[in-house]
Amino acid sequence: MTELPAPAELLSVALAEARLGLREGGIPIGAALFGPDGELLGRGHNRRVQDGDPSTHAETAAFRAAGRLRGYGRTTMVTTLSPCWYCSGLVRQFGIGQVIIGEARTFHGGHDWLAEHGVRITVLDDAECIALMREFIATRPDLWYEDIGE
Amino acid sequence: MTELPAPAELLSVALAEARLGLREGGIPIGAALFGPDGELLGRGHNRRVQDGDPSTHAETAAFRAAGRLRGYGRTTMVTTLSPCWYCSGLVRQFGIGQVIIGEARTFHGGHDWLAEHGVRITVLDDAECIALMREFIATRPDLWYEDIGE
Repeated sequence: MTELPAPAELLSVALAEARLGLREGGIPIGAALFGPDGELLGRGHNRRVQDGDPSTHAETAAFRAAGRLRGYGRTTMVTTLSPCWYCSGLVRQFGIGQVIIGEARTFHGGHDWLAEHGVRITVLDDAECIALMREFIATRPDLWYEDIGE
Repeated sequence: MTELPAPAELLSVALAEARLGLREGGIPIGAALFGPDGELLGRGHNRRVQDGDPSTHAETAAFRAAGRLRGYGRTTMVTTLSPCWYCSGLVRQFGIGQVIIGEARTFHGGHDWLAEHGVRITVLDDAECIALMREFIATRPDLWYEDIGE
């Protein structure tokens, strides 16, 4: 049995998704869902702009890409940004056991609520994640506030 | 300016979606998003089975079908079943102002939490919605528990 890679290594997959989203003209938030031994189950990024789809946040994209599964308790969701209420609700409903978060400075979503409900939360405070969102919010505030319903 | 139709009339759209999902071999939960004057913005149903997509619950399907919008405060989400945490999170994040729920007997999701956060909640306790879910859960418990992550 292998081990779950280090958080920074897991985050690199989510960050690659975020950068890809930015290159596509989209909102640069990426996520990935990993199994207990570090196997990549699904990865994705926000697709509001690309697909005109407000329901595809990074976390829901990664969750969808993993397909139909039973039992998420031993899975880990890695996301470049603190999950909004929508994505936090996803984590709680499906019982995803752990969430690793790139940063929670530019947006503070529902991760404290998840921690209260037993989800293991790690906030990495990653400089690249912070820079990516700070620059994006400064450049395209319209898109950002649309994406979080504000 | 027209008025929002009666809750039972709004529910009929969600119920039609739920029945359609059942005929497709899927999980019979439907939803629709309406604007302040009763205009239908989007409708949809659970697509776990049909698309192999665990991320498309009825509410997220209706929300996606409505496309990109700004400001959900005056919209109403109608759903045949109490929204799970995932769909409740959607309502909270995007500030959907009102949720009309067919029934909350076969599943009690996050609607009390939404009410605490200022969302106007109506539970209709509709006999057909209850019968539809009771029969489905009795027939396909595997699918049902997969869909709510239990």
